[in-house]
Formats: sequence, structure tokens, C-alpha cells
Amino acid sequence: MAVFFILMFSLILSSSYAAVQDFCVADYRAPSGPAGYSCRRPETVTVNDFVYSGLGVAGNTSNIFRAANTPASAAEFPGVNGLGISMSRVDLAAGGVVPLHIHPGANEVLLVAQGTLVAGFISSDRNTVYLKTINSGDIMVFPQGLLHFQVNVGNATPVLAFASYSSPRPGLQIVDYALFQSNFPTQLIARTTFLGIPEISRLKAVFGSTN
Amino acid sequence: MAVFFILMFSLILSSSYAAVQDFCVADYRAPSGPAGYSCRRPETVTVNDFVYSGLGVAGNTSNIFRAANTPASAAEFPGVNGLGISMSRVDLAAGGVVPLHIHPGANEVLLVAQGTLVAGFISSDRNTVYLKTINSGDIMVFPQGLLHFQVNVGNATPVLAFASYSSPRPGLQIVDYALFQSNFPTQLIARTTFLGIPEISRLKAVFGSTN
Amino acid sequence: MAVFFILMFSLILSSSYAAVQDFCVADYRAPSGPAGYSCRRPETVTVNDFVYSGLGVAGNTSNIFRAANTPASAAEFPGVNGLGISMSRVDLAAGGVVPLHIHPGANEVLLVAQGTLVAGFISSDRNTVYLKTINSGDIMVFPQGLLHFQVNVGNATPVLAFASYSSPRPGLQIVDYALFQSNFPTQLIARTTFLGIPEISRLKAVFGSTN
Amino acid sequence: MAVFFILMFSLILSSSYAAVQDFCVADYRAPSGPAGYSCRRPETVTVNDFVYSGLGVAGNTSNIFRAANTPASAAEFPGVNGLGISMSRVDLAAGGVVPLHIHPGANEVLLVAQGTLVAGFISSDRNTVYLKTINSGDIMVFPQGLLHFQVNVGNATPVLAFASYSSPRPGLQIVDYALFQSNFPTQLIARTTFLGIPEISRLKAVFGSTN
Amino acid sequence: MAVFFILMFSLILSSSYAAVQDFCVADYRAPSGPAGYSCRRPETVTVNDFVYSGLGVAGNTSNIFRAANTPASAAEFPGVNGLGISMSRVDLAAGGVVPLHIHPGANEVLLVAQGTLVAGFISSDRNTVYLKTINSGDIMVFPQGLLHFQVNVGNATPVLAFASYSSPRPGLQIVDYALFQSNFPTQLIARTTFLGIPEISRLKAVFGSTN
Amino acid sequence: MAVFFILMFSLILSSSYAAVQDFCVADYRAPSGPAGYSCRRPETVTVNDFVYSGLGVAGNTSNIFRAANTPASAAEFPGVNGLGISMSRVDLAAGGVVPLHIHPGANEVLLVAQGTLVAGFISSDRNTVYLKTINSGDIMVFPQGLLHFQVNVGNATPVLAFASYSSPRPGLQIVDYALFQSNFPTQLIARTTFLGIPEISRLKAVFGSTN
Repeated sequence: MAVFFILMFSLILSSSYAAVQDFCVADYRAPSGPAGYSCRRPETVTVNDFVYSGLGVAGNTSNIFRAANTPASAAEFPGVNGLGISMSRVDLAAGGVVPLHIHPGANEVLLVAQGTLVAGFISSDRNTVYLKTINSGDIMVFPQGLLHFQVNVGNATPVLAFASYSSPRPGLQIVDYALFQSNFPTQLIARTTFLGIPEISRLKAVFGSTN
Repeated sequence: MAVFFILMFSLILSSSYAAVQDFCVADYRAPSGPAGYSCRRPETVTVNDFVYSGLGVAGNTSNIFRAANTPASAAEFPGVNGLGISMSRVDLAAGGVVPLHIHPGANEVLLVAQGTLVAGFISSDRNTVYLKTINSGDIMVFPQGLLHFQVNVGNATPVLAFASYSSPRPGLQIVDYALFQSNFPTQLIARTTFLGIPEISRLKAVFGSTN
Repeated sequence: MAVFFILMFSLILSSSYAAVQDFCVADYRAPSGPAGYSCRRPETVTVNDFVYSGLGVAGNTSNIFRAANTPASAAEFPGVNGLGISMSRVDLAAGGVVPLHIHPGANEVLLVAQGTLVAGFISSDRNTVYLKTINSGDIMVFPQGLLHFQVNVGNATPVLAFASYSSPRPGLQIVDYALFQSNFPTQLIARTTFLGIPEISRLKAVFGSTN
Repeated sequence: MAVFFILMFSLILSSSYAAVQDFCVADYRAPSGPAGYSCRRPETVTVNDFVYSGLGVAGNTSNIFRAANTPASAAEFPGVNGLGISMSRVDLAAGGVVPLHIHPGANEVLLVAQGTLVAGFISSDRNTVYLKTINSGDIMVFPQGLLHFQVNVGNATPVLAFASYSSPRPGLQIVDYALFQSNFPTQLIARTTFLGIPEISRLKAVFGSTN
Repeated sequence: MAVFFILMFSLILSSSYAAVQDFCVADYRAPSGPAGYSCRRPETVTVNDFVYSGLGVAGNTSNIFRAANTPASAAEFPGVNGLGISMSRVDLAAGGVVPLHIHPGANEVLLVAQGTLVAGFISSDRNTVYLKTINSGDIMVFPQGLLHFQVNVGNATPVLAFASYSSPRPGLQIVDYALFQSNFPTQLIARTTFLGIPEISRLKAVFGSTN
Repeated sequence: MAVFFILMFSLILSSSYAAVQDFCVADYRAPSGPAGYSCRRPETVTVNDFVYSGLGVAGNTSNIFRAANTPASAAEFPGVNGLGISMSRVDLAAGGVVPLHIHPGANEVLLVAQGTLVAGFISSDRNTVYLKTINSGDIMVFPQGLLHFQVNVGNATPVLAFASYSSPRPGLQIVDYALFQSNFPTQLIARTTFLGIPEISRLKAVFGSTN
């Protein structure tokens, strides 16, 4: 039996240099590449790298959207690095809204844990708005790169939902932020969206563009 | 402006033959391939194809595991076909257990919605059991193809959890079923697992192998 | 030598059923799947399936954007099906603009063949507008799923440009169309974008929403 | 326990329409797509679809190369469809050669089972010929899309080797066949290769071009 | 001609910084990532990085399984890093067995070079055991993430086989090792497998668990 | 509103360590891996990393091919790293030719911007030469890993063309260079191509092999 274990042992040894077996827990201090963060050596990995408790706490919804998004992507949760999956928590106070946005890097499935939402996405080929009221226990899929949104339509009931993504780095582009909280010149916004200048200026004030 | 819309219109026309834009809602009556089911034509797709309510209902846990797994993979939820993501619901009665199993086709992130679990997976390179007690709000990742399990350790409290997968077809291989509810010959089980024949026979009786 | 050719012949025979060797020219009449259109049998394929002349003709820019986009995706150009690449032609009359839009399914590299553009995209993580004046011979990359735009800033000079995509199905979601030429309810637009109702109504009139 | 089995049963039922679980045995009579052949329904699949005996028989080497290549790609071996792997058998009589060729669709690892080869490939960036004499038990890797070759240099000893590929459809482009057994016009060969016309004509005669 | 060569030269120069052309020979001293090891600079690569002789030597089968597995994955064979392929050698003495195991990261094709095996895998959807006696020259495919095994059933004849994998890092999870040679608590094994405690204790003694 | 911005701020902070959001601009001084170069930190990235002007300048065609290829792959254009796309510029003087070559790592679409070409590729399964005269405005696709070529057949008119690739690292293997400008031994060329020794020697002199 001895030699068999020796062979196994040598397999373990060589693997200890590999750090690429089974999982690739993110090493935030080493270079990252197109496929994600570098991997930590497996001997430094513990079960805590595979568990994340940050989604157990409600986000603060005292903001203009009455909403909070708490991510558990590879940047916060090292265990999902390279694994094609991640999550986030969505809290919506009464009247809260997840404004029109895109995930450039992932498809999403949203699980409603509490409350009632109107949710929708817009297809690119026909500009169809796929719109539905969804309730606790429902799941809805939002394809990658398409504009979508969710609105709390329950009377005074907060919404708790969890989004799952098909990538450890889904990204999040909120249209209002992209336009009105960025360095996007007003004239260029007007030309590329046909929005009126006064409306743009109003929204830049709302969203805090310093441009 | 006319011509621009005509161009758009022709784009729509050609897309109507494509059925491959933005999403690929499963057509269960057409051939499937390595990448998933065929796509339904977009003009037949409605928002209901993107919403699934089957996870809102508790599974029946009156079984030997005191557990139920309710899938929302591409086979049940046509909207996730081809999108690299799917979900399932896990119910565990008091003392319930998700027995040792593998998802051959996906990484998993499990969200505990209610209750307390002991969960773990075993790495392939060092046979390390990554084991932790996880509570409501926690998420834990289980890498693809590795043996893992969950046990309800809360006193008399049922567990509700939701699993997200990095594929619309994660697969589910329960070791007990593979060995003891299949046509796996007893002698061959013994030789390939070193389990004793009496133990195999006992478990075949428990799990209902007719072999 | 005979037998060697026989072997080759049998290889050809088996391949004639395969239709999956080297390329997969789109069969628009068979089912499509997540990876694209079905393949035509190679014996029915000619060189014309690999050549497309539709980009040699200027699009009609007599529209509100003074712009035309002429696609050569898998829906128009069967030879790129399954090959991870496609193109489109962009014409901008004097003062023309490619309005704010997203390609949900592809990264883009734009080649300026004639004229001068101001082009930009907005990153999702910091809402940075990456903005530059680009000239004939320049190429610029626009990452997948991010809002971007191009404006003809040359004095009275038309712009001709060619976009290449990292997918045969890049998709094209124009924000103005998604919002104002769709069935997106005005109240919901207002809640999810913070645009004022009068502005929404004005733009719905401009873009022809019948909602 | 009843309900649990019912749940399992319903899982099986839905899977029976899926035909996409675990494997995708090729259905040669249904359409193929960019990802491979359509899948046969799992209830029609037997273990024989996963076993192939065609590589157990020596190919006939009575040809100009004194060589035979016997493929076990998805076109011959339905069980590897969609699985990212396939094989072939290589027989070289004394003095036999696998002429300069490319696999457009796969990386290759060649295992020498018997005999001695000189094998090599040429890198694209520096035109370096990586060349080595390899013996029984050795494996050598040939990266995708690079020109490579093998020559039996053993004195009168036949070579038996097995190639493994990183795709079920590696493809095989033999340079001599592409140039001299095809409809490639002689003048065009000359212009694009700088080979002399007499040499081209000689080789067209050798390889049987009817052009 | 000069300038053309200069252009080529500049291409070579820029490529010398790239180290990502054609192949990516593993650099075991640099960080690894989700896609594999870092690449060595091409100017330090020789043909020996693409050839591996470790599979030419029989593994030592003097162990409980009368078996040996000798891997040639990216951890041992730097030339396959990033190339979607690797191999291993399997030796089985008379009566030897490759015990029930999974490759979490790859599909496998097994080539029998000598002897007779009974081999099988278990599907996840129906718990079907696909079982067959395979002989020298046969190949059999084992889909990713599914439990499988091989048993030498030849009378006193050793088996020599070679496994090819669809990944440079297939992984290897032996069920007996995962359960009985790991830190998996006995009570938890019992609850998640329904094995009896005495049987677990017996096998922990056999496989050397120190838990 | 304060807390919402704080959440956003923390998202930005964590992303600032990620360097993997939206894009992955090549860091030429850090290790590269199978998926490409390491990413530069986003705070060091400017719009100039996404724009490349090198294709605006004609290559020098004073060489034996009367041709120049100017690449804009990830090695020259850091913005396309990891994005599945790149380009190059092709100049052909009167009578110029892009000699028989392969891109081992990408499919290609060629856009003719000026002039008239005869272009073709050879399929691997049937050795069919797909051959066509293409003009300004035409695009033609060349599948990955297949031998192809272009010849300027316009009377004294230079050709300008732009190639797009389905990878940031398409690679370029010119058959004449691989054979006659490399360290490929003459005897081995002869045995693996059936070219005559005098012809090989002649071409080695033409292409400058020092071997």
C-alpha cells in the first residue's frame, strides 16, 4: 500500500504548486487577468473563504431610490472567483425602485424573498418590454446586457430580493448614474439621447454630477 | 426619418428568423444540442417564459431524507436555457439532510433563507472537508463536481434554502441513489468502494434497488 | 496508395453527415439554439456563403439621427454563424449621431474609414466617460454591455465607419428606442429613470411610441 | 418517503424531454449546430454509444505516406459529441510519415504506444521548429492551428500512436492535399506559395489533383 | 524586402513581451489564475516543455487497490497548460481496481492499451449504470462529474490504460479517500450517506483516516 | 441619500482592487496567462488605452510579397486584451499577395476598403478551395486554422483591407516562413511535404533560412 500513498503524496505535492485545482480563491494582492483574480495557494484557504455573511444584513435604503444593492461578487466574496457565479442582495423600502440598469457581464435570476415587485426588461431586437408583477417565491430571469428595472409596488411593504448572476463579475451600470453622475458633457448627452438640456441639468443636480 | 425606420424594420424582420437574439427560450419539442434546447421563435415568447413560480411552494419532506429539492433548471424554467444560470429550492424538515451529492455540470452558491445548516464539501486534491455551520442570510459556494452535503442542525426548525448554479443544467448525482437505487451490481459496488456486502444489501433495501 | 484514399473517402463520407467541420453556415429554416443557427450541410455550401456585399452600400441617413447602421451579423451573413465574429457598417451624415446604445452580446472595435467622430463609452464601476475624437484610420474598442455613442463632428463631412464584434449576434439596444419607441408605460419610465413626465411624453412623440 | 420519490420521478420526467443532462450522444439524423450534433434522447442511449472499438484495428498503410489515420471524432464516436475531447489512431509503417498538417479545431497530445518518431511543430510567432525524437511511452503536445508532422525513424519498426484532441471535431488539414489534391489553380498556388510551376505540377500528379 | 522583414521583426519584438501566442507553457513560480498557470516567456521555452516521459513508466501497484494512477496534468506537464487537454496513465495489477471516483473538471476518454476491464459510469438523471467489458484497443468516454470506476477482470493479466481529459486540470476525487481518508466526522458521514457507524469506522481504519 | 452613496462608494472601493470590471487593459510588465495579459488597475487606464492609431498608416510593401500586415492585437493594442476581438491592416501594392497562411487562434473577417482581391481558403474535410474575387465594400470570412490567401488582382491599384479577428491573439503562421525561414531541416521538409530538395533549397535562399 505504501507506494500508492506515495504516489498520492506526490500528486498532493505537485498540486500544492498548482493552486488551480477545484477552486481559485481570489488573491486580491496579486495581478488579475481576463479570467479573474489570481488564486491563493490552497494551503492558505479555509472554509471561511467559501462562506459570505454580508448578504444577511439589510442595506441602507435612506437614499433617493429608497433602495440598496449589496454585492457578493468576486471583489467581496473571494470564493466565487473564476466559478461563473455570484450574488447580490436587494432591499427596497416602501416605494423603492431599482432604477433602469444593465449588467454588462452576466445574466441574472432574481428571487423575491419578501414583498411584491413590478419587474421588467427590454429586448434589443423589438424593443419589447417584458413586464410582470412578481411575488415572494417567484424568480425572474434578466438576460445579459439588457436594460431592466424593479419597482416595489407593495403597499408599504419592504421588498427583499436576491439576485444571482452567471459571472463572478456581473458589473452594474445604472443609466442615471452613467448620464448624470458622471463627467458626461451636457451637450453630448443631449445629442446622443435627445433629452432636453433643462431636463439634463435638472437630473445632474439630482444625481450630483460635478460636471 | 422614414428610411431609418425601414432599416430598423428590416433588422426586425431578419431577427424574426434568427430566434437567437438576447435570449433563447427553450423549445421542448425541437432537438436539443450540447449547448441546450432549441430556441422558440421570439414572437411566441411572453414574459411568463421568464418568470417561474415553482420555487414558491415548499417541497414535500415526508421521505427518508426529510428533504426536498425543487429544481428550476432549463428543463422546468424555459427562460434560463442557454444563459449559464439556474436555481433550485431546498426544504429540510427538522433533522433533514441533503445527502452526499455532486453537481456534475455547475458550481453552486447556496443561500440560507431560514434555519441553520451544517454544510460542507470535500476538495479533490487533499481530501479536505471544508465544513461550516451557516445561518439565515449566509451564502456558501460549492465548486463543480465535488462531493458536498447539508444537514439541518437547528432544533426542530425547518430549513429553507435556495441554490443558484452556474449552468442551466447543473445535474444532481446523489451518491446513495447512484449506488443503491440503481442497477449497480452488488459485487461491483463492493469491489469499487470496499463497502461490505451486508452493508450494500442493507442500503439497497433502504433505497429500493431492484437489482 | 489505394487504401489510404479509401480511408480519406470514408472520412469524407462520415463528415458529410457531420456538417460541423471547419464552419457552420447558417440554415435559417432549421431550429436555432443557444450557440446559434443550425448548420447547412457542407455539400450545399458555396463560397458565396462566406462573402457578403451588403456593407458596400451606404445606408440611408434621412432620419432623425442622420445615421444608418447596416448589420452583417449571422442573421444576414450566414458564413459567420458560430464563429465568434461579425460586422456592421455605420454611416453618419453631417451632424449625424449613433445614439446612446449597448451591444448586449459582444465587444466592439470601430474602425473609422472616413471622417471625424467623437466617440465614448461609460464604465460601470466608476461612471467614467472614456471620450475621444477619433479620425480616419483610428480604431476604438467598446466593451460589451456598456453604454456608448458616436457623433459626427466633422464639418459637413460624412462619416463612414465599420464595427467589428466579438460575436455573430452582438445585438443592439438603442436607449431612446427602448424607452420611447416601446410599450414601456410612461409612469414606469418616470419611476425608473427620474425623467419628468413631460419630457417622456415629448420623446415618445419624437420616437413614435404608440403606448 | 412516497412524495420524495414522486419529486424524483417528476425530475426524471422533465429530464426525459431534456436530453441535455450529463451527455449529448450524437443524433446523426437531426440538425447540427455550432456546438455539435443534436442529442439523442437519453432513453435510447446505451453503453455502446460510449464505447468505440474502431481504434483497435490497424489502419492500412499501403499508400504514399505509408501511414494511416483512423479517427474517433464525434462523426464516428457519438458519445464524445459536445464533450470537448476525441481521439484518433496513427499507424506508420517503416519509413512512414504523417505529412505536414494542421488541426484547425483542437490542441493535440500524441501518445507513442510503439516505435520511435521524430515529431515537430512550428510556432507562429518566431517560426521556431520544436523538434524531438520521441519513444514509446512519451507524450507530446501540438498546439491548435500550428503546422506539425511525425516521421517514423525506427529501423523497420512500425509506429503505433494515439492522438487525443481538445475537441470532438479537431479537423485535419494536410498541406499536400490542400494544395495538390484540391481544385486550387496552379497559378494561384504559385503566387501564394512561391513554389515553382513544375514542382506544383509534379506534386499535383503525385496527389491526384484533377484540376 | 527589407521593410517587410522589419515589420516581421517588430511583430516578433512585440510578441516577445506577449508570451501569450500559440501556447502558454506553465510558469510554476508565478501566480496562477482561473484559466491556469502564468505563461513562461517564449524565449525560455524549449521542445522539452512539450514532451513528457513520465507516462512511460509503470506506476507501483503494491497498494490496496493494486492500482496506480500517474498524472500528466498541467501540474506535471507544463506544455498542456491552458490547452484544454491532459492525460494520465493507469496501471492495474491482477485484480486491481480504480475505485469509484469523479473528475470534477473534465470529461475523460480511456484507451485500453493492454488487458481487459469492466468499466462503468452512473448517470445523474436516472441513476443508470452504463457498464461494459472493454478490451485492448477500445476507448470509452466518461462524462465530467459523474461517478465511475474500472476493474481489471482479466485473469492475472495486468491492465495498462491511458486516460485523456478535456482539461489540463481534470482533478480526481476518490470517494473512499473523500470519506475515509479525510477529516470528515464519522457522525456526519453517517447522516449524509446512511452508512452504518461500524462500517464507517472499519473503512476509516482501512484508508487511514486520523479523524 | 447619504447611505446610498456610501454603498456606491464602497462598491467603487472594492472594485478598485478588482481591476477586472468591464475591461482588462493589458499590463505588459506583469505575468500573462492562458486568457491573456494581466489587467492594469482601472485608475491608471485612460481613453488612449482604448484607441489605436497604428492602422491609419500604410505598411511598407517594398518586399518580396509587395505586402504589409500591420497588427492591432493585444500585443500592440492593450484595450482589446481579454475581449475576444482584434484587427490588422493589410496593404498590397500592385501585384501584391498575402501568401498562404493560417491564424491558429481566430476566425477572420476581411473588409476590402480599396481595390480588388482574389481571396480563398481551403476546407479541411474535402480540400475544397472556396475562391472568389472580392471588391471594395465586400467582407469575407476565413474560418480558424484553415489555410488561406489573398492576391491583388487589380491592375496597378493598391489594395487596402482590414482584418477583424475573433480573438485578441489570432496568431499568424505564414507557410513559406514556417518552412523556409525557420530552422526546419531540409531533409525533414522533403519527407513531410514531398517537395523536392532543389525546390526547398531554392526557397530557403529566397526566404533567408540560415539552416
